[in-house]
Amino acid sequence: MAYQTILYDVADKILTITLNRPEKLNAFTATMQQELIDAFDRADRDDGIRAIIVTGSGRAFCAGADLSSGADTFDRDAKRGPVKRHADGRVDYSDPQVRDGGGQVTLRIFKSLKPVIAAVNGPAVGIGVTMQLAMDIRIASDAARFGFVFSQRGIVPEAASSWFLPRIVGISQALEWCYTGRVFPAQEALAGRLVSKVVPPDELLPTARALAREIADKTAPVSIALIRQMMWRMMGADDPMEAHKIDSRGIYARGRSDDVKEGVVSFLEKRPAQFKNTVTADMPDYFPWWDEREYK
Amino acid sequence: MAYQTILYDVADKILTITLNRPEKLNAFTATMQQELIDAFDRADRDDGIRAIIVTGSGRAFCAGADLSSGADTFDRDAKRGPVKRHADGRVDYSDPQVRDGGGQVTLRIFKSLKPVIAAVNGPAVGIGVTMQLAMDIRIASDAARFGFVFSQRGIVPEAASSWFLPRIVGISQALEWCYTGRVFPAQEALAGRLVSKVVPPDELLPTARALAREIADKTAPVSIALIRQMMWRMMGADDPMEAHKIDSRGIYARGRSDDVKEGVVSFLEKRPAQFKNTVTADMPDYFPWWDEREYK
Amino acid sequence: MAYQTILYDVADKILTITLNRPEKLNAFTATMQQELIDAFDRADRDDGIRAIIVTGSGRAFCAGADLSSGADTFDRDAKRGPVKRHADGRVDYSDPQVRDGGGQVTLRIFKSLKPVIAAVNGPAVGIGVTMQLAMDIRIASDAARFGFVFSQRGIVPEAASSWFLPRIVGISQALEWCYTGRVFPAQEALAGRLVSKVVPPDELLPTARALAREIADKTAPVSIALIRQMMWRMMGADDPMEAHKIDSRGIYARGRSDDVKEGVVSFLEKRPAQFKNTVTADMPDYFPWWDEREYK
Repeated sequence: MAYQTILYDVADKILTITLNRPEKLNAFTATMQQELIDAFDRADRDDGIRAIIVTGSGRAFCAGADLSSGADTFDRDAKRGPVKRHADGRVDYSDPQVRDGGGQVTLRIFKSLKPVIAAVNGPAVGIGVTMQLAMDIRIASDAARFGFVFSQRGIVPEAASSWFLPRIVGISQALEWCYTGRVFPAQEALAGRLVSKVVPPDELLPTARALAREIADKTAPVSIALIRQMMWRMMGADDPMEAHKIDSRGIYARGRSDDVKEGVVSFLEKRPAQFKNTVTADMPDYFPWWDEREYK
Repeated sequence: MAYQTILYDVADKILTITLNRPEKLNAFTATMQQELIDAFDRADRDDGIRAIIVTGSGRAFCAGADLSSGADTFDRDAKRGPVKRHADGRVDYSDPQVRDGGGQVTLRIFKSLKPVIAAVNGPAVGIGVTMQLAMDIRIASDAARFGFVFSQRGIVPEAASSWFLPRIVGISQALEWCYTGRVFPAQEALAGRLVSKVVPPDELLPTARALAREIADKTAPVSIALIRQMMWRMMGADDPMEAHKIDSRGIYARGRSDDVKEGVVSFLEKRPAQFKNTVTADMPDYFPWWDEREYK
Repeated sequence: MAYQTILYDVADKILTITLNRPEKLNAFTATMQQELIDAFDRADRDDGIRAIIVTGSGRAFCAGADLSSGADTFDRDAKRGPVKRHADGRVDYSDPQVRDGGGQVTLRIFKSLKPVIAAVNGPAVGIGVTMQLAMDIRIASDAARFGFVFSQRGIVPEAASSWFLPRIVGISQALEWCYTGRVFPAQEALAGRLVSKVVPPDELLPTARALAREIADKTAPVSIALIRQMMWRMMGADDPMEAHKIDSRGIYARGRSDDVKEGVVSFLEKRPAQFKNTVTADMPDYFPWWDEREYK
């Protein structure tokens, strides 16, 4: 699959996905949505990829939804014909046509088996910032700016951001940013814990790559894939016993793996570990342990 | 309804609710409970109100429960006669008489369709601080002090604060404040993320009003009402798919509204938006999407 | 019960549990697991204990799992014989043999009726740090270091840390530490909110004791036990109404107790309160209000 709106580059086990419509400030389109989903599918199938960096081409990260349709931008019926309705005229919200595009991207990222780092190089507004919330870690250039501008457009936050954002920055900060819709600088994002670090523009990709490098060089791929899903999925668990059940399976199943034997022995021998297990072949038999929630 | 314990002032689309028993440091009573609930009901029905500020009259925000009944202060049976009991003598906790008054206030605030800002002008102790936890944003004067003093009185935290507080300040900070019951200054509240800002006393109301102003002047009322409920309700959702379902309805339903068309066009034309949709008339057909949890 | 791997000292109503294999940097063993569980059981039955401090003997807090079995360290079958399997050869994960030992400790701490403070005196790695996550408050010496090293050993985080850690430090910080597996200093733990305070080594135990003292001297034991369970259990509740139900029972039942009458009257008389109710005799009739989740 050749991409039109993103770049997909793998180097040294790190995939860099670059939003690539620089003349449009990388504005989000239906094509970009499909290409992002495809890129994450592809990355999960490729054992040569140990971490993913997402950044933007040119001066912006992503300026939000492409507004070239003007007033009809968010009008599904006007743009693609009427959605299904019940006999009484009410919308049939189970119709997959009535699905937020940004949320399809973040739900796909949520399922990723590889760590995802956002390297925010410039303005990130609307879907440009909400798409980042399912990524694990956000690092910003001091040229970055952020805006949850939905209230100023008369629409609502999307991309499942009402689930992600309060869990990342706290409910008060989430509400303040979403209520006002204001665009704010990288330092405010740092103070509010939306990003974990702010660096000069020319250090942005090196910083993101150094973190990806640390993961790629020293850790076991199967451990990383399990960690990602354990942590994110347990955000929704109502009791630590649910984690204990999954931990117990993990400690048992991985505890007898060649990777663990290598991990312990290499540590005792003070040498780098050589992990052999792969995500495509060696995920444990209990994985996935959850039923993927369906849209309806 | 004329209020005895609070003031209710609307100016420039901002409602200011002032706890108004200054000679008693605005101590909380059953009357204040009923009046606060009524005030929030009234605000939701009034499209002329875009944001709510809650503050205290005189030198305190609220000194906690009125202790003028002394030892009987928290003894329901002594104050209002026996509650219902099962045949075996055990209390029938489904009896609505056995309901915490503070919680009835915070659950009402939780349902508010308007943003709620606490402007904490002085001491806020017991219910004086727990009532603030269902408000969206807390701004403190440096004369403010806070105390979750329940452990020092032999009682337990109330107003659903065991749900709200750890979600706002983290479980460790919540436990430390509730274990010790100590009264602490505004700067400690800021460091612990209980409040988002500390300002000199004479800047307190101007700061709260500037934030309310930003919301009232630039944003769509229906967006704000939806944002408030999306963010708070998704705090309890176990999977981001639940947010995606509601987002999808919101993007569809609002995406074809006049407000969104105005929001996008005004942005492209670089002029202020004129939103026409109202909370009383134009909430989308899927709202509310949840079943309100009942007391039992 | 005489302990081999921990010390159990009660002084002035404060229990200090000291991990005590200093020559092995207090590495965690199956015996330590059992002894820790027993110590927390014992503390809950002893009304003479008002708070618990957990620390390490010698220069470490706990260096993680004892690796003296080398490659077989985490291999249950190799160490204790085969676990149960279904007819088709798949592991029967309901077999209690397939239970993570660290999680049995943290789930026991989770149920504690006494406040638990970790006084982290030195390196805390693997189970050495994950065991702390069910403790309420962590205070570190500036000699402390922390490491969620699982990814570097090829194993997965345990002790229900996938539930606890993101709730304490946020999902991004949790993932960054668990992805890299790096060992980091006390100041990074403070910045990331894993610990609430960092002090010089000789102030560590005095600081922990001063906090325990504040709780032991001024507060009602039954209030503290209820607060601990209310706050932790409500972390898993999906709606503040669930807190309101329990608060209502607490305010009713405790509101008529002798402790509350003493708490209010002593406050009005500006004298220290003398609370008489005990955890072993006076927990309210609705406690526990939850069904303990079972392993299966």
